[in-house]
Amino acid sequence: MRTVYSPAHAAHRPPREFLDGALIPSFESPERAELIRAAVAGLGPITAPNDHGMAPIEAIHDRGYLSYLRDAHAAWVAAGRSPEGVYPDTFLHRHALRRPSPPRAVGAQSGHYTSDLSAVITAGTWEAAYAAAQCALTAALGVAAGEGASFALCRPPGHHAYADLCGGYCYLNNAAIAAQALRRAGAHRVAVLDIDFHHGNGTQHLFYAREDVLFVSLHADPDRQYPYFAGFADETGAGTGLGFTLNLPLPAGCDDAGYLAALDTGCARVARARPDFVLVSLGVDTFGGDPLGDFALSGGVYARIGAHLAELGAPTVFIMEGGYAIAEIGDNVASVLRGFETRRAQNTNKEQSQACHRQI
Amino acid sequence: MRTVYSPAHAAHRPPREFLDGALIPSFESPERAELIRAAVAGLGPITAPNDHGMAPIEAIHDRGYLSYLRDAHAAWVAAGRSPEGVYPDTFLHRHALRRPSPPRAVGAQSGHYTSDLSAVITAGTWEAAYAAAQCALTAALGVAAGEGASFALCRPPGHHAYADLCGGYCYLNNAAIAAQALRRAGAHRVAVLDIDFHHGNGTQHLFYAREDVLFVSLHADPDRQYPYFAGFADETGAGTGLGFTLNLPLPAGCDDAGYLAALDTGCARVARARPDFVLVSLGVDTFGGDPLGDFALSGGVYARIGAHLAELGAPTVFIMEGGYAIAEIGDNVASVLRGFETRRAQNTNKEQSQACHRQI
Repeated sequence: MRTVYSPAHAAHRPPREFLDGALIPSFESPERAELIRAAVAGLGPITAPNDHGMAPIEAIHDRGYLSYLRDAHAAWVAAGRSPEGVYPDTFLHRHALRRPSPPRAVGAQSGHYTSDLSAVITAGTWEAAYAAAQCALTAALGVAAGEGASFALCRPPGHHAYADLCGGYCYLNNAAIAAQALRRAGAHRVAVLDIDFHHGNGTQHLFYAREDVLFVSLHADPDRQYPYFAGFADETGAGTGLGFTLNLPLPAGCDDAGYLAALDTGCARVARARPDFVLVSLGVDTFGGDPLGDFALSGGVYARIGAHLAELGAPTVFIMEGGYAIAEIGDNVASVLRGFETRRAQNTNKEQSQACHRQI
Repeated sequence: MRTVYSPAHAAHRPPREFLDGALIPSFESPERAELIRAAVAGLGPITAPNDHGMAPIEAIHDRGYLSYLRDAHAAWVAAGRSPEGVYPDTFLHRHALRRPSPPRAVGAQSGHYTSDLSAVITAGTWEAAYAAAQCALTAALGVAAGEGASFALCRPPGHHAYADLCGGYCYLNNAAIAAQALRRAGAHRVAVLDIDFHHGNGTQHLFYAREDVLFVSLHADPDRQYPYFAGFADETGAGTGLGFTLNLPLPAGCDDAGYLAALDTGCARVARARPDFVLVSLGVDTFGGDPLGDFALSGGVYARIGAHLAELGAPTVFIMEGGYAIAEIGDNVASVLRGFETRRAQNTNKEQSQACHRQI
């Protein structure tokens, strides 16, 4: 399986995030992507992304938001604020009157376009986020062109990004950008299967009222865990998209067996939709040792997760999301991809063998 | 003029606030109230508040929010988070689906009920906020009972608190609670004149659709300064409250003359409404040396501000809001009150003298 990777991710290096009343080293670090790259080196070629430009990004994100992401750090520093990064401290809230245009003050823009304190914008954030989106696009369009599967090693991740909100380490929604590009390339239906520990609230919202992009997510119950305000089981879509969102919130301590059972449920829904492509929002913060998670998955389960995904038999794009257990992140990601490839090869051999038998 | 003060304010002592990417000592400190108390000691008696109970607070604030304020710190600590205080890091945003009830996770509740990172909830926050509201109620009901004017030395301040949102160092909206209590006590119309440097966004919102409580505010233009998302000149009220909100946003560097001119405009609107009572949300962060402000008012202007307010000739309740220039905060507050008293005495003498002349 090909991996699409850009070294530009390293331009995004927020030194600290604000969590539980303290400024701590950011869990979402450049090291993550480098460890994953090293671990997947044996699985196939690692290529740079093609540049598909802004159009596929603008198909998902608000223009004002994109301008903000590009310019926020420079404006922040120009206003005399800390060059370390844009840290919002005042947030647009539910009682604010709708204004005709985005706010002008940098302190207001950050609160207008951000939902939490983990999505710090540094001097290199736009460069990295743009490259991550191009990785997702390149991987997806490669699969559309005939590659059976591909891995977009996106960093920063994307699934918490809304059309006009960054949050949860995410700026551009790589999976959503890829899904939309596949639709534009002719797919009738795309499924996004999000297996990050955290609910993919941005992705859900972007496709909530659409039936052409199915969103299925396994994640920690938002009644307990970030992102808190989306990911409940009763959120099932709206309008023509009703029934095209499936949330499977899971309890703390969820183990291998519990997870695989939920994955079966999720995969069954994906299979029923008969998508032309499956996009897997791949997080490995489901791992028992993850510092931000509370599941109890073993390292051994990741190959089985990959095998389950291969059973869908669909052209598949893996898009990297979260995972913060540094020592195991490479192995766990590579295990998913290897488990997928192994099962797919077995199934292909079986099909060929059955075809041979039929011919005989 | 009587001052209503409670030492309970000192139970609220957030050590730090998060501003511009750093945890810094909180500008809103117990020292502020003690300095003001010392400065106003010569102006009249300082009395403790009466306890008017929860009913007048519940007339303004959401029940779920009040439970949150009371219990948040204990729940936060019970969840294993830092006992220093409740610091939200994930905020309810405009794309969150409406849920039937408030969230259960402590990290979600804080983001649901808070609009920024300055309203830290500590073990003693509820005790202090409750006492501040009782100070405002006691001062207001004293004026309703015949005192011509009174000063509620509220801390924490209140004007950024919404029905169900804390923010900007504010938890309970002392001015709104007092205004509503005056209405309940029989006033036909109450005017809130907010002269804090920052727009009184919570107060505005609470009375935005009502004509019985006029809200007039002089403040830094929200296009430039906190609270950013309210306080624009085109926000003039809604429904039957249309025309009963007047915002006078002011430029950076606003000087004594510019400020007094705007105050004349604001007072003219108040006078036109013929309120039974005037509540002055009194902040002295308009002072040139204030660390959070950008106006250029001199210390000498505060007595003149007080004199302008006296010209309204209405029973007046002063309610303490912001002001962070520690060295001058006492003098500036006392100057407003003294300027008010002096002018009122002059006017009373003039009236008596005119009455004598008419008798002769």
